[in-house]
Amino acid sequence: GWARAVRGLLLDVSGVLYDSGADGGVPIAGSAEAVRRIKASGLKLQLCTNETQATRENFVRKLRGLGFDVSVAEVTAPAPAACRLLRERGLRPHLLVHDDLLPEFAEVDKTNPNCVVLGDAAENFTYANLNEAFRVLIGMEKPVLISLGKGRYYKETDGLKLDVGAYMKALEYACDVQAEVVGKPSKSFFESALAELGVPPEQAIMIGDDIVSDVGGAQQCGMRALQVRTGKYRPSDENHPQVKPDAYVNNLAEAVDIILQHL
Amino acid sequence: GWARAVRGLLLDVSGVLYDSGADGGVPIAGSAEAVRRIKASGLKLQLCTNETQATRENFVRKLRGLGFDVSVAEVTAPAPAACRLLRERGLRPHLLVHDDLLPEFAEVDKTNPNCVVLGDAAENFTYANLNEAFRVLIGMEKPVLISLGKGRYYKETDGLKLDVGAYMKALEYACDVQAEVVGKPSKSFFESALAELGVPPEQAIMIGDDIVSDVGGAQQCGMRALQVRTGKYRPSDENHPQVKPDAYVNNLAEAVDIILQHL
Repeated sequence: GWARAVRGLLLDVSGVLYDSGADGGVPIAGSAEAVRRIKASGLKLQLCTNETQATRENFVRKLRGLGFDVSVAEVTAPAPAACRLLRERGLRPHLLVHDDLLPEFAEVDKTNPNCVVLGDAAENFTYANLNEAFRVLIGMEKPVLISLGKGRYYKETDGLKLDVGAYMKALEYACDVQAEVVGKPSKSFFESALAELGVPPEQAIMIGDDIVSDVGGAQQCGMRALQVRTGKYRPSDENHPQVKPDAYVNNLAEAVDIILQHL
Repeated sequence: GWARAVRGLLLDVSGVLYDSGADGGVPIAGSAEAVRRIKASGLKLQLCTNETQATRENFVRKLRGLGFDVSVAEVTAPAPAACRLLRERGLRPHLLVHDDLLPEFAEVDKTNPNCVVLGDAAENFTYANLNEAFRVLIGMEKPVLISLGKGRYYKETDGLKLDVGAYMKALEYACDVQAEVVGKPSKSFFESALAELGVPPEQAIMIGDDIVSDVGGAQQCGMRALQVRTGKYRPSDENHPQVKPDAYVNNLAEAVDIILQHL
């Protein structure tokens, strides 16, 4: 019954459309065709990603190069959401993010920082950069740490990599603070994605490879959620103590097959 | 009344005897003389440190160079304790530690690792090394993470630095495991230090700059504990929600003054 009465899909990207990697990544078999079939069916589509290693423009350019028919407007990502939050609260960030994400923060006042914004900085997660972010935070009367997602790890073509959540926990512990998460699984982030999708939660399905950030987060918002057995999926996810997806599918193509059969 | 009936002292080192740093560090005023006075008084003395950036031999050589009259036998440190634990449990470590600590593990079988041992690796806390330790851990059926201390940060001559505890939290979160801590504030570590001191807990005082690892840990073992206002001490420590030292002292020299007056 999980596939009934669907009008829109939120798709995670890394591990669902493609496996990321230093080489630009490789598409997951059948996923480009699945995106085309979703669009041809009239279902609404929005990519809901915690990707913070590139601007949305460059991210979409990469995905199009891998054969995915997607546009910038179809991507909900943490950096633009963080910029809105910084503006609303008058926050000036010290950034520990990937170099390729910096243009997203070009318009933001970064002088005399009163918060730290942490993204998936990858190679920028050096000992020196982590110490610097720590010193900025611990020097604040009331440290404010904003984390673009809180993923534990992700899979690249050359193996698993620690995600931003691990570094967030390091700074949380060192400074005795709790980070504010902008990105999945935060409820407000899913609500933004649903607003851009233009479909209420009960008519939308989230499809992702992360049992907590994708499946758990979406279900908290009243959506159905599927876990694909691609990307970082591990068989032990199926025994997760808190989160149970509405269904498992082998990959995006299989999910789309089933959903289109029920339209 | 806190200074009565004392027969032995456990001293933290960094932040109490000296402030560490890439330049070898600088002694804290009055501390070398305080160590001499302790020894002349007949009180027993043991250094109880979470130092894992050097072998005990090199650590003692550095301290002697800074004017401290101490010997290797007077140092209780995590690496030898970890080696005992590895031997007892047949564990073969993947090491993420400082290069200068490696000789402590020279005799340990490191082939085909079935645990990860994490120390204060400092410059070795690279993105690549953290990912490697993570991959070794996540690849185990039941990940075993051993952390040499769990300090949040420490002070070096050029500023505050993240300590091993922050990286421990990163790996704990990424792998969904709880680390076993060898070092302060673990009870068994303090008990080893007391055994080497040769004094029962109720006749010993711990003196340190870390409100949790030094003061809280020692009190859990039935010892009195003082916090010095040197090293990483911060005024906000005096409002710590869980831990309250038996007394604050401005520095080691002041503590020793008071203790010797009560002999």
